[in-house]
Amino acid sequence: MSFDSTVHAKAIEIAKLSYQMTAAAGSGHPTTAASLAHIVAILMYQHMRYEPANPSHPLSDRLVLSEGHACPIVYAACADLGVMIGKTKEQWRPMTREDAMSLRALNSVVDGHPNPCEGFPFFDAATGSLGQGLSIAAGLAAAARVNGIDKRIFCIIGDGESREGQIWEAVDFIKDHRLTAVCPIFNCNHLAQSEAVSAQQTPAVLTAKLQAAGYEVLVVDGHQPSAIQEALSTHAQRMHDPAANPVAIVAKTVKGWGSASQQGDGHHGKPAEGDALAKALAELDATAQQLGAMVDMAMKIGLMSAEKPRAKERSAVMSFSDALKQFGLESARQKGKLATRRAYGVALRALGLANPDVVALDADVKNSTFAEMFSKDPKLADRFFECRIAEQNMVSVAAGLSAGRMIPFASTFAKFFVRAYDQIEMAINSGANLKMVGSHAGISLAADGPSQMSLPDMAWFRAFSSMKGHNGHPGCYLLQPSDAVQAYALTLAMAEHDGPCYMRTLRPDVEFLYTDEDKFQLGGHEVLVEGRDLLIVASGYMVHEANKALEKLDAQGIDATLVDLYSLPFDEEAILDLANENNGMILTLEDNYGGGIGSAVADIAAADGGGFTVKQMCVTKIPKSAREPDEIMAYCGLGVDQIVQQAMSLLELSAT
Amino acid sequence: MSFDSTVHAKAIEIAKLSYQMTAAAGSGHPTTAASLAHIVAILMYQHMRYEPANPSHPLSDRLVLSEGHACPIVYAACADLGVMIGKTKEQWRPMTREDAMSLRALNSVVDGHPNPCEGFPFFDAATGSLGQGLSIAAGLAAAARVNGIDKRIFCIIGDGESREGQIWEAVDFIKDHRLTAVCPIFNCNHLAQSEAVSAQQTPAVLTAKLQAAGYEVLVVDGHQPSAIQEALSTHAQRMHDPAANPVAIVAKTVKGWGSASQQGDGHHGKPAEGDALAKALAELDATAQQLGAMVDMAMKIGLMSAEKPRAKERSAVMSFSDALKQFGLESARQKGKLATRRAYGVALRALGLANPDVVALDADVKNSTFAEMFSKDPKLADRFFECRIAEQNMVSVAAGLSAGRMIPFASTFAKFFVRAYDQIEMAINSGANLKMVGSHAGISLAADGPSQMSLPDMAWFRAFSSMKGHNGHPGCYLLQPSDAVQAYALTLAMAEHDGPCYMRTLRPDVEFLYTDEDKFQLGGHEVLVEGRDLLIVASGYMVHEANKALEKLDAQGIDATLVDLYSLPFDEEAILDLANENNGMILTLEDNYGGGIGSAVADIAAADGGGFTVKQMCVTKIPKSAREPDEIMAYCGLGVDQIVQQAMSLLELSAT
Repeated sequence: MSFDSTVHAKAIEIAKLSYQMTAAAGSGHPTTAASLAHIVAILMYQHMRYEPANPSHPLSDRLVLSEGHACPIVYAACADLGVMIGKTKEQWRPMTREDAMSLRALNSVVDGHPNPCEGFPFFDAATGSLGQGLSIAAGLAAAARVNGIDKRIFCIIGDGESREGQIWEAVDFIKDHRLTAVCPIFNCNHLAQSEAVSAQQTPAVLTAKLQAAGYEVLVVDGHQPSAIQEALSTHAQRMHDPAANPVAIVAKTVKGWGSASQQGDGHHGKPAEGDALAKALAELDATAQQLGAMVDMAMKIGLMSAEKPRAKERSAVMSFSDALKQFGLESARQKGKLATRRAYGVALRALGLANPDVVALDADVKNSTFAEMFSKDPKLADRFFECRIAEQNMVSVAAGLSAGRMIPFASTFAKFFVRAYDQIEMAINSGANLKMVGSHAGISLAADGPSQMSLPDMAWFRAFSSMKGHNGHPGCYLLQPSDAVQAYALTLAMAEHDGPCYMRTLRPDVEFLYTDEDKFQLGGHEVLVEGRDLLIVASGYMVHEANKALEKLDAQGIDATLVDLYSLPFDEEAILDLANENNGMILTLEDNYGGGIGSAVADIAAADGGGFTVKQMCVTKIPKSAREPDEIMAYCGLGVDQIVQQAMSLLELSAT
Repeated sequence: MSFDSTVHAKAIEIAKLSYQMTAAAGSGHPTTAASLAHIVAILMYQHMRYEPANPSHPLSDRLVLSEGHACPIVYAACADLGVMIGKTKEQWRPMTREDAMSLRALNSVVDGHPNPCEGFPFFDAATGSLGQGLSIAAGLAAAARVNGIDKRIFCIIGDGESREGQIWEAVDFIKDHRLTAVCPIFNCNHLAQSEAVSAQQTPAVLTAKLQAAGYEVLVVDGHQPSAIQEALSTHAQRMHDPAANPVAIVAKTVKGWGSASQQGDGHHGKPAEGDALAKALAELDATAQQLGAMVDMAMKIGLMSAEKPRAKERSAVMSFSDALKQFGLESARQKGKLATRRAYGVALRALGLANPDVVALDADVKNSTFAEMFSKDPKLADRFFECRIAEQNMVSVAAGLSAGRMIPFASTFAKFFVRAYDQIEMAINSGANLKMVGSHAGISLAADGPSQMSLPDMAWFRAFSSMKGHNGHPGCYLLQPSDAVQAYALTLAMAEHDGPCYMRTLRPDVEFLYTDEDKFQLGGHEVLVEGRDLLIVASGYMVHEANKALEKLDAQGIDATLVDLYSLPFDEEAILDLANENNGMILTLEDNYGGGIGSAVADIAAADGGGFTVKQMCVTKIPKSAREPDEIMAYCGLGVDQIVQQAMSLLELSAT
């Protein structure tokens, strides 16, 4: 029984350290950690192919801890194995027991929940908001497939956690795309935070649900080393068998395993301290005795192969005009109009042809977002992932693809991205290089009504555009092109940038405002008209409304400046300079709820204290259906005449 | 076959009108509508118990159209049956064919997707963002149970739509709570928007998944009237059998049923116009001929019973002090500190005892949000719904409970509400009377790290606090109490208000700032200290930080005003007046990302143009774990000394 005794010994060793580090932290989840002691011990000491000296090696197997609060057990193993930690490769050093004891301290890289960006490269993504890990694992497996790397992705999911619908979106996605490199392990320790898990998440019901989804399910005692090892080996055999179904492991475990005093209700998220700690540790020692636990077998970890991932050649991306020609869309030039969403499709395809790291995802609206221009190109089809109507999974899969060194572009209606805002925030916390393109933004799609319109998204993403991510860049760039040329250029700019970006595209065709010669950049803006009486700041569809308003204002003798503020954040000084050249009078236009461009301009004006006046026009009531964009614009107070009226009243003039 | 021939006749009649109204609108989803023609015809002409003259009657069966884009088929039936439409009961009139033909017009109550608030009381909730309807149906069934009303809730879900994880959260919730009054009907028409539905959403796989979840599944031909009727009758029998499992219907249907030219790919969301319309209608006429369709049987609809819902007595809610006494928490008074999240639990329980319409929901963190004070009271337990770790379902269930005339309070960590932002927006669009309480808000929980911290939520909810809902109230009130007394009072105020509210509560105990005598209201604020040099605006935890800063500023000879701005929206003039009394100098404090209170104040200052200067302090980088709140505050630049420093530099002074 040398395998069993060795695993028992390591399991108990890391369980004990989990209790000690959480006691030192004064918070944390040692009993959840203990329920995973054997599974993590086998994975990290015996089964996974990875190098403690290079935990982020692209060829190594990965472990995604979806139930992030169990992290002490992984930290404990890493401390024992001397897995490298540190914010940058230059700062890497082997993790020590002292590091483990610094859990949750301000100056520690051992954070309360997994986060590679805080200095823990063994992990690929920040977890802790439940239900997201299996999707990330699927993304890692998809990236490995695209890169021709044979590796395995283990994902540990809690039983209570498996109530999250996203877990089942991921289960379907893995089956759809045969991502058999993913090995989902459900940790059924029976106790959730506030009570026992639902009868809908018992091992038996989870097994039935997984089987219904087309999985081969292996139910094991999660504290029986050989049984766990056998199940993991079965996964290893099945994953390359084209006839086999995906394999999932359902592990029956005990919360607080090995120490009776820590079992049962009331121990979730509560470290054992003082006498309780001593008792828990003594009980684990006794359990070790009883099981004859001892390390009498060699460790087996290490990389599976030394092969390097394929070298991949990038080439220059063709110009917008060339792309229109090549993709048979030149008629748009004659027509003088093209929807920015279609320009995104053109750009995505051109980008994909030039950059083998670009992958695309969509949620069954690729014929509306025009991601289908990418998916329909035979040269690109194997880098497209149809995610069906499951936006949360799509975003987390994209985060996983990013962790797998790809540049993922995910698209759906801007409204439906709201579904995945928690996943987007966790991806930003993970340092994911995520590109999101939300179509049918604002109210200009009219007829479909508010269930399809994105209205608070500007406020949400502005919160991230105004803070900094781990790499010092804005947490997320918020882009809204006003014409097809700009949409094309900004799509390319997103790919060049290392960090999250969100671009809003429009349903209706809009006139061309720019040419191939115009240059656009993240953080940029464009002065379309220079005046002296009033600064109008707009983006997207509202730039076209503003252009119409400018003519009418001119007839009233008002000489207005028009800025296409297509990016947040932006050059604040430049905008204030323009305002100063216009008597400090600013009118902002946006066809979404407040908290977007108008507030961004108001923030810098109010911070300056220079006596600027900022009048904001935005959507202030719930829109409805209308057959034409003009109708809904007027209904929401954003019609051309209403813009003129507001401009006049801001300047305290009345129309003549 | 009089039943079949009658149903065929009605099905074809409403299918034809669906084509005609979408053609008139120039957009819409007639082929999806046609796939539901028989199911909707049987429900609305034969099976449901409701009154066209009073479609929102509390005793009537309900139909939730989760795949909202199929609404033309329901509109068509309502036009034929003269179901009442209109924004208010005073404006109600029987729907006509002309109304149907006004689909999606600006001045029409027949909106592009279902929405009761636009004047269609037959529906209970706005749908169109997919995957939410089954949760709403569960909420309606839960409300009926609480009110002792025997009614049925039919819910139609698309096959492609059933990829959304929320559908499976709802499936588990219905089983957990035995809400057998819900009859889920899966419309398997095989074609999604951009391609055929996944192999994971075929009738066979959906059946297996539902059976795995503990359902009795009836698979029927969705165009065979007797088969549909029999399945619906089976549901009617089973729903009162305590031994029976919940029943679900899986209907195999044809997208574009009855007109061959409209079947197959490429017809999703595309109305047939001109010759194509004529052809589709002719094909439906031929189908009618062939099936011998004719109305030769009486309509059967009408209310099941005339019984009135129970009258329910409300009483006055006890005072905070009395509640502390009665619930054994008086020690908090001596301690001088209490967490606002605990005060919420006290208020929720006191409120529940006084108001039988109040119901509560939580997502397995009730012992952290303190919703357990409600769930553990035997007098209230039957009005508590444990939703497990599935936030999307919780919010939509709450919206359904609201549509069932209850006042739902839903709680989880503020961070985890992000998961349900799309559901929250749809609830706001539905006019739901939804109360949300997000605990562990901001960064003061420290040790757990950013995966548990709510940081962009202020920006998101501010977008809704700055627009108006259908009833003219703010789309959502955004509340953040700074002490337990205020948290108690605001919880009561939320219950009194008709409309959505979101309240943030804090993890740590905080000192009492107020007494039972202090009054608080939605839209209010409190001046805690009156000075003349500087206006400091804060809420929640930052009020306590500001208090500490005030002492240090006083030592520097700075006489600052402190406002506890616990509500958005707020009295803008009053805040500007205070600013004017402080030389126009404003410092805002918040422990979340930007776009919240600071931007709200900057908006009004910049709009006024009176030369105010607004310095915003907020979280500008991704937080991490720290063992103490003070540590993470300082890490994020929000420590007391940093506040003092910023105040000094704003006043262009240097500390002495």
